[in-house]
Order: sequence, then C-alpha cells, then structure tokens
Amino acid sequence: MLKRYLFAPGPTAVPPEILLELAKPVLHHREAQFIEALTEVRDGLKYLFQTSSEVIILSASGTGAMEAAVANLLSAGERALVVAGGKFGERWAEICQAYHIEVIRLDLPWGAAVNPADVQATLERDPAIRAVFVQACETSTGAAHDVRALGEIVKAYPDTVLVVDGVSALGAMDLPMDAWGLDAVLVGSQKAMMLPPGLAFIALSEKAWQRAAQATLPRYYFDLQKIRKDLEQNDHPYTLPTPLVVALGEALRWIRAEGLAQVFKRHRRLAEATRAAMRALGLSLLAEEAPSDSLTVVRVPEGIEGARIPKLFWDHFHITIVGGQDQLRGKVFRLAHMGYVDTFDVLTMVSAVEFVLERLGYPLQWGAGVRAAQEVLARPLD
Amino acid sequence: MLKRYLFAPGPTAVPPEILLELAKPVLHHREAQFIEALTEVRDGLKYLFQTSSEVIILSASGTGAMEAAVANLLSAGERALVVAGGKFGERWAEICQAYHIEVIRLDLPWGAAVNPADVQATLERDPAIRAVFVQACETSTGAAHDVRALGEIVKAYPDTVLVVDGVSALGAMDLPMDAWGLDAVLVGSQKAMMLPPGLAFIALSEKAWQRAAQATLPRYYFDLQKIRKDLEQNDHPYTLPTPLVVALGEALRWIRAEGLAQVFKRHRRLAEATRAAMRALGLSLLAEEAPSDSLTVVRVPEGIEGARIPKLFWDHFHITIVGGQDQLRGKVFRLAHMGYVDTFDVLTMVSAVEFVLERLGYPLQWGAGVRAAQEVLARPLD
Repeated sequence: MLKRYLFAPGPTAVPPEILLELAKPVLHHREAQFIEALTEVRDGLKYLFQTSSEVIILSASGTGAMEAAVANLLSAGERALVVAGGKFGERWAEICQAYHIEVIRLDLPWGAAVNPADVQATLERDPAIRAVFVQACETSTGAAHDVRALGEIVKAYPDTVLVVDGVSALGAMDLPMDAWGLDAVLVGSQKAMMLPPGLAFIALSEKAWQRAAQATLPRYYFDLQKIRKDLEQNDHPYTLPTPLVVALGEALRWIRAEGLAQVFKRHRRLAEATRAAMRALGLSLLAEEAPSDSLTVVRVPEGIEGARIPKLFWDHFHITIVGGQDQLRGKVFRLAHMGYVDTFDVLTMVSAVEFVLERLGYPLQWGAGVRAAQEVLARPLD
Repeated sequence: MLKRYLFAPGPTAVPPEILLELAKPVLHHREAQFIEALTEVRDGLKYLFQTSSEVIILSASGTGAMEAAVANLLSAGERALVVAGGKFGERWAEICQAYHIEVIRLDLPWGAAVNPADVQATLERDPAIRAVFVQACETSTGAAHDVRALGEIVKAYPDTVLVVDGVSALGAMDLPMDAWGLDAVLVGSQKAMMLPPGLAFIALSEKAWQRAAQATLPRYYFDLQKIRKDLEQNDHPYTLPTPLVVALGEALRWIRAEGLAQVFKRHRRLAEATRAAMRALGLSLLAEEAPSDSLTVVRVPEGIEGARIPKLFWDHFHITIVGGQDQLRGKVFRLAHMGYVDTFDVLTMVSAVEFVLERLGYPLQWGAGVRAAQEVLARPLD
C-alpha cells in the first residue's frame, strides 16, 4: 500500500472531489455550459481576490503571471524597485532585466521581511521608480512581507504601482486587494486554491489598468487588456484549459462555502500549530520575525545533512516535502500547510518530522512536537 | 440523457481512459514517479515530432508557443515573412508586430494554400528576411500549406528559419520535422494529441537553436534555452501541470501503439470520407485545392443562415462543431476529425449534417452523405 501525502509548497494536494471534475468530458470553450462555468468563476475569483476588478485568467504557471505584470505595466528603460529576499524576489529582478527594466534592488537576508520604511525611503529618493515588485509570501523562505503597509506607502505615488506576487499567499492569508490598495495581485492555481498547476490569475487596480494602457513593453499572449475585453464577454482570446476552469469553479464553491474569513483562520491556526511544534522540538524557523501562514520553513539542525530530510520523508512515509533552494540548499526544509490541509495533516507532518529527525540522530522526546501542535489545534477556531 | 460529441477543431474529445489519469492524486514535479513520467514523455514527444531535438514543454496554449517562436528566434527590427491565409496566419503577423518585427505579408484568399514558389521569390527579392512563419494546417480555413516544399526552399538560406505552426496538424498529418528541414514546429495539447488544453510544445532545429542563442527579443517565461537546459535534466524551471503531463504520457503511449504511419492513414481516410460525404450532398469545401486531413471546412449553402448550423448541431444533438471566424463568419462550418476519432464518429457527424441541413430547408437525399462516407471507410486502411 502506498498512501501519499503532498506537503510541498506547490503543487499541493487537490481534493478527490475536485480531481474528479477533471475527468469529466472536455467542454468546448464556447458552449453554454462552459460559459456558465466561466461566469461563475469570474465572480468567484473576485471574491477570492477581494476586488471588484476583473481577474484575468491565464493558461500558464505563476511565473507567466509575473511576466504579464512586468510586460503590461512598464515601458523599456523604466525603473522598478524589487524587494529581493528570496528566490522569487530574484525572479522579479530577472524578469525585469529580461525586459530591460532598470532594477533598483532592496536586498534582504533570505528569511527577513522588508521594512516598509525602507521602501518609502527608496521611493522618496528615487522618484523615477514606476513599480514596486514584492511577494506577499516569499515561498523560498516562508517570510510574509507587509504588503498592507506597502499599499499605504505606494498609494501616495500616483505614477508608481505596487505589484504583489500572491502565489503562496492568496487563499491562505488575508490579501484584500482593493482595501489595501494593491495595484496588481497574481497567483497560480496549485497553491492555496486546491487545484493542480496550469492556471494563473492576475488582477489589476484602476491605476494599474491606466498604466497598462500606456506601457509599451512587448506582449501578446500575456496582453491583459485584450484578455480582459474578451473575459468581460465570458470569452477568452486563447483556448483555456477548460477542465481546469470547471474544477476551479468547484474549488471556488468550496472556498465560498467555508468563507474567506474562516479559511484564513484555519490557515493561521495550522501555521501556529506547526510553528509551535517546531519550537517544541528545539528547531528554529528561518522567518522567525514575520512567518507566513501558508508554509513553515525550518532550519536544518546543526550536524544533520539537510538534503536527507525530504529524502527520508519520501522513502519512509511517501510524504513529499521540499528542502531549500539556491543559497538555502541543504539549510532548511519547508512544510506547506496551505489549501486542502486540516488538523490531522499538520499532526501527520509534525510526527513525520519527529520520526525523520530521530532517525538522523537529532535528540528529541517522542511526541513533543505533536503535543505542542495539538495544544494549538485544540483551541476553538474563533 | 445527454450524450455529447465534441467535433470542434480544439478542444477535441479526450478518451475516458486518459481523462481518468487527470483524476489521480497530483504528483510533485520533482518526485521520482513524475521524473520517470517526464523522461518517457520527452522520448514520446520526439517520436511524435519525428525529431532528435528536445521538444520543449510549455504550460500555455498554442498561442504561447507561437509567441515563444517569435521571441526566441528574432531580434527587434528584423524582418519576417508571414503566410497570411487565415486567422492563424494573421496571428503570426500580430505577434511579430507586437515585438516590432517588420512583417512582409504573403496574403492569400482564405482557404487557399500558399504557392511555395511565391515564398521562394520573396526570399530571393528580400535577403533580409530572417524567418518564415506558416501554418501546416490553417485551422480557420482547413487548408494545408505545403511545408515540405517550404522546408526545401528555406534550407538554402542559412540565416533564415522556417517556423511551422503545427497546432491542428501534428499527430494528424505527416510532419517529419527533421526529414523536411523544418526549423521550428509547435503544437497545442488539445488538437490531435487526445488531451485537454493546457500544454504547448515547440521543437527547434540546430539552425534555430543557433539563432535563439543570438536573438535578443525579450523573453523570460518562454525562454526556450533555459527550459531546454532544465528538461535535459528531467526538470523544468516553472511548475508544469503535472496531471496533464502524466496524461500526456498515456496519450503518447496510445499514439506509439497505433504507430504514426497508421495514425496518419486513419486521419487521411476519415478526412477523405468526410470530403466525399460533403460533395455527395452537393456541398463545396473552402480549401478545395489543398484540404487538410484534420478538419474539413464546408461552405454554407446559399440561402442558409450559417450561424444556425452549429446552433442546431448543439440544440438537437449535443454535438459541438464551430462555424467560421472573422471574414468567414456565417460562411462556413467546420467539422474536425482529428485525435480520438473513428469511423463511426465521422458517420455521426455526416448524418448530423444531413439532419441539420434538411431542417434548414436544404434539398438532400437521406443518406447520400453517409453512403459516400461509408464507401470510403469500407476500404481497407492499407
């Protein structure tokens, strides 16, 4: 018997009920049943993004949506500020450079969250900055940047937009786009949305749509204005993965039924339980200062070869977790608790941490992590 | 009871056995089982493309792969020749223009196939042309361009590449990339490959890879060199839709088991049967001169409102077919017979044409189309 557990920060586990939607006969993108599904999905996405703007649907990974943000909001030679505190912050810089955007970097130690005052100071010093690129949650480090504070700051600059990569945040942590004045928020389907990879989404504020109308970087497949025009007619210029859109409809119904407020509370509690468990085991978190609620990134204890941790998770328990990337390779392991995750999933991953670390010679008291998690999880959700 | 038939030129019907692959638990893109699937898929794609080059896998629609071709093979201000004989020829021109490529158009009446001598003459006249963009099958008109002859011609120009949109041809018609000297061939998953939309593929010749190394148009998500480097390690820089890749593995096994030669013969016969049926009903084909084997585009008979044909197909029989696009709106209807299509599917679509046209007042003899199709389909495949 092989029972799998997928606790990676994307792709994440998908409920069997939603997977079965994918096995239904393929709908044509212009038949009535699909148009009905798309209408409902457009509405559900606005709920999820907490916006009144149209949420643009792309057949792409999250990186495609990141590129769409750059290509639609900037013109060649313009200047952008990139919060670089992990692999995905670096990705913003790389995309900007590919498009000949002048990048001003705000470098952080990996694991740290940006100090909003530093962004403000940079914007004050350099009025030519036209966009600020940041992650709501930096998936490589588990740090949550204070995008709410950044929204407040960037709002004061009429010619500058705040672009938020919400890939591992949206649907797990509160990210009310309109209320916080975020100019662009994007996400991929395979994180907190309980879907397989294959769709990406991006919504723009009115300020951002105005920039898009003027920005001259080349784009075609990712031309958001063209897609918006079609979506508003329940159409799309390119063939969408229709089964995934149908499954998305089901996932959005689940999210609505639970209610966003409840979804965020659930993730908060799962995260708090995981953090409490790791601390109870004497482990320390990489993003101690501003940990995200969607994944917990744990430092590999001294004397243990980091790469062995995910390997043992798989070899002994068929649990997929991942280690660190780039400069964090071998130094951390990452436990994702976003999307289709409940109390017992967290207890599973915590007890597996105990099993694996014990096997690697780490001194621990059986059940110390699980007990700490239970104490948090036993508290009522409200 | 609602029994659906999907005879649109994409998305096309997917076998239930392949749909069920999509309902299996999501694999992580770096776990052994997925890497094994990807290894097999890479090999199967080379078989399908009839190439020894790496076939690049993109999470995108076919248009994404078209954009990848432009962005990886050209530099700003360079000149390209576009064969414009339908909606997708126009799309090549639009993408080139979005990237500030100077477009030389070879305009054709919609439904015509390009005369290779015209391409040769244009290349001779204009040595600055760096790429020729064409469709193997123009999905909007059903015309098949003679890309084999174009391969012969472009081969003589060391600084010019031939880029073939194989979206509704690859897997239905013989398109041996290496043997015919095609420099780039691309396709989407939702046509002859028996898969839902969500994946696109593009392969480059050695000549094209050399151009890609020098071409300077901006690209990031579609940077084919970067993706190739990772794919060669059974990795990918961006999260692939893992369930679709697993399903692709199954589809490629089906194609291999049938054998490409047999697959092409099957499509040829289904197409011949459809064409014979339409002629027997007194209807005429738009692409009379060089009809493709993947879809048949039929002129709407005089006196009949074209838009009513697909509508009646759906309303009475739950069959999805599509009409014409842009300048062909209301003037044609399109019957696709690519991918998961057999003898009885063709008889179904032909008899539905009879039912629908009769209802619209078109004079016909019951069964005349079906009989003509049967006569073709009764012939042995070899």
